[in-house]
Amino acid sequence: MTTTASTNTPAQPFAVAVDVMGGDYAPEELVAGAVQAARQHGIAVLLVGDTAAVKAELSKHPTDGLPVTLVPSQGVILETDHPALAMREKPRASVVEAAKLVRTGRAQAMVSLGSTGAAMATATLVLGLLEGVERPAVGGPFLAPLSNAVLVDLGSNVDCRPAQLLGFAAIGVAFARSIQGVDNPRVALLSVGAEEGKGNRQAKEAFSLLKASKLNFVGNIEGGDFFLDRADVVVCDGFVGNVILKFAEGLGVAIAHQLPMLLAGYLSSEAMKKVSRDLSALTNAVEAAGGGPLFGVNGVVIVGHGRSRAATVADAIRMAKRAVDVKLVEAMRREMAAL
Amino acid sequence: MTTTASTNTPAQPFAVAVDVMGGDYAPEELVAGAVQAARQHGIAVLLVGDTAAVKAELSKHPTDGLPVTLVPSQGVILETDHPALAMREKPRASVVEAAKLVRTGRAQAMVSLGSTGAAMATATLVLGLLEGVERPAVGGPFLAPLSNAVLVDLGSNVDCRPAQLLGFAAIGVAFARSIQGVDNPRVALLSVGAEEGKGNRQAKEAFSLLKASKLNFVGNIEGGDFFLDRADVVVCDGFVGNVILKFAEGLGVAIAHQLPMLLAGYLSSEAMKKVSRDLSALTNAVEAAGGGPLFGVNGVVIVGHGRSRAATVADAIRMAKRAVDVKLVEAMRREMAAL
Repeated sequence: MTTTASTNTPAQPFAVAVDVMGGDYAPEELVAGAVQAARQHGIAVLLVGDTAAVKAELSKHPTDGLPVTLVPSQGVILETDHPALAMREKPRASVVEAAKLVRTGRAQAMVSLGSTGAAMATATLVLGLLEGVERPAVGGPFLAPLSNAVLVDLGSNVDCRPAQLLGFAAIGVAFARSIQGVDNPRVALLSVGAEEGKGNRQAKEAFSLLKASKLNFVGNIEGGDFFLDRADVVVCDGFVGNVILKFAEGLGVAIAHQLPMLLAGYLSSEAMKKVSRDLSALTNAVEAAGGGPLFGVNGVVIVGHGRSRAATVADAIRMAKRAVDVKLVEAMRREMAAL
Repeated sequence: MTTTASTNTPAQPFAVAVDVMGGDYAPEELVAGAVQAARQHGIAVLLVGDTAAVKAELSKHPTDGLPVTLVPSQGVILETDHPALAMREKPRASVVEAAKLVRTGRAQAMVSLGSTGAAMATATLVLGLLEGVERPAVGGPFLAPLSNAVLVDLGSNVDCRPAQLLGFAAIGVAFARSIQGVDNPRVALLSVGAEEGKGNRQAKEAFSLLKASKLNFVGNIEGGDFFLDRADVVVCDGFVGNVILKFAEGLGVAIAHQLPMLLAGYLSSEAMKKVSRDLSALTNAVEAAGGGPLFGVNGVVIVGHGRSRAATVADAIRMAKRAVDVKLVEAMRREMAAL
């Protein structure tokens, strides 16, 4: 471990800035996860956090020769803070310093498991948004492996104008193409009937815009169609997306709780526990994947679940590397420009 | 069986008009289900349908001494028809004739498994709506037994004004109290954050109205909270409600499909099939319950799933009897008036 960019480690193609002060188990699990990413995957990590706290955590891990660097910050923006106000009051907070490292080119991506609102505000103000984007969106294959469809928006934009849904489609297509390797992603609009003309005003107008676009628009899908492989990208208002995201997670847990009744007599209690865990995980893919990129930001910002432990933190850091490798931001910029 | 009101059967407290021409398996399963309700539960049923078709079905069942009466109708309104137009073109269609029997007092309730749009249009035009209701709503404990919360609206009203959501709360409370026996039903607003002020414009305004009302309003709940017994009645726009309803059904089926993988080695293929079926049923309570009443109509109208078979038809007829017995319509009228 070094406190400035190391000269003993091999030249790194890039570095990931990790906000080690954000998340339910910060800094302990964040530091452990970052060290793991450096050791197992050779990813250079910049640990952004309170010097004393990070050093104390680092002392628990052997880091000699690893591309692990401490970058001091002061304070942390909490879930309970108002993101924009907190950025003014804590201008050197860990999430802000991490974004600055990306802006100045010292890191090529950042990871935060703290307040998503703070990550969005920081990304917007420090890194900026792509042309045509009004606010970062959150999206991803939140139902994988039950469904690989990328849903945008998962909760950061509500009361969307139809044109915003068109933008979600474009950046969702960039994600499906770059990260998931889908050739000509099929775009669908989430609505309450398959036919054109079904839905609320927002959906009806978005339908017209999507139909007139050059995107591979396949029409409306309904809530049950996620599981029928009808689309690669599904767009909806963030109000609906967030309700579904949390509903899926809750329903998975609720079904897992019913298993002992459904499987009474078939399984040992040990096996039952394992099956219950596997089943809950099925509907909680966002957590399982470590995190996903904010959509529409002029830089790679991976946001993850606050409850994540070290292994999941390492996964989020790998996702950051992946997004840089496949040039996700450039792909999103291109798709937005093509609209 | 008689073709006019029978004089050989004991005096009936009421009769249920059954639209035996609506539904995927009409008239066969509809007639069978109605006969079953008459035989097993002593409920007088008026079979509304094409004379020849119904007689042919009735000939398959012994109905001597049963309170089963044929009421002729002409034509049926299909899912693909425009409900209001179809009512003009087929003024003697089965669903219309069934509603007329309720209006004239020959029946106290009706059941239809045909087009929900047709049932709603017929209910509105033939029976009328309660004061303050603009359009019938569809609601119910769609997640029972995973959750007993009554969700209103499940898809008949989109782009709702906040005042409509307040109305959904009132009629949902009447249902929870009358049908489910809940003492002082807790009302929650579905949104994307627990705190007041979270949500889209519609939710924020509805929050204020609900807070100012005399209802037992417990605030916002999120998508995952359905399973945590935080509310007895949950209100949302029908766009969101319909997406969730179909999403739950699809997710249950998708998880059931994963079971062979999760349970590999534990269960015989026979046991696996049974468990898969039980699990799918968990998220498809609307079908399991037979059907639910249209909310806000000046009469008991039970709408059921088109795929229902005889046993489920009989359940829907029992639900109709129950709604009459507990005076559901009066309870809804009272709650609306108290707003």
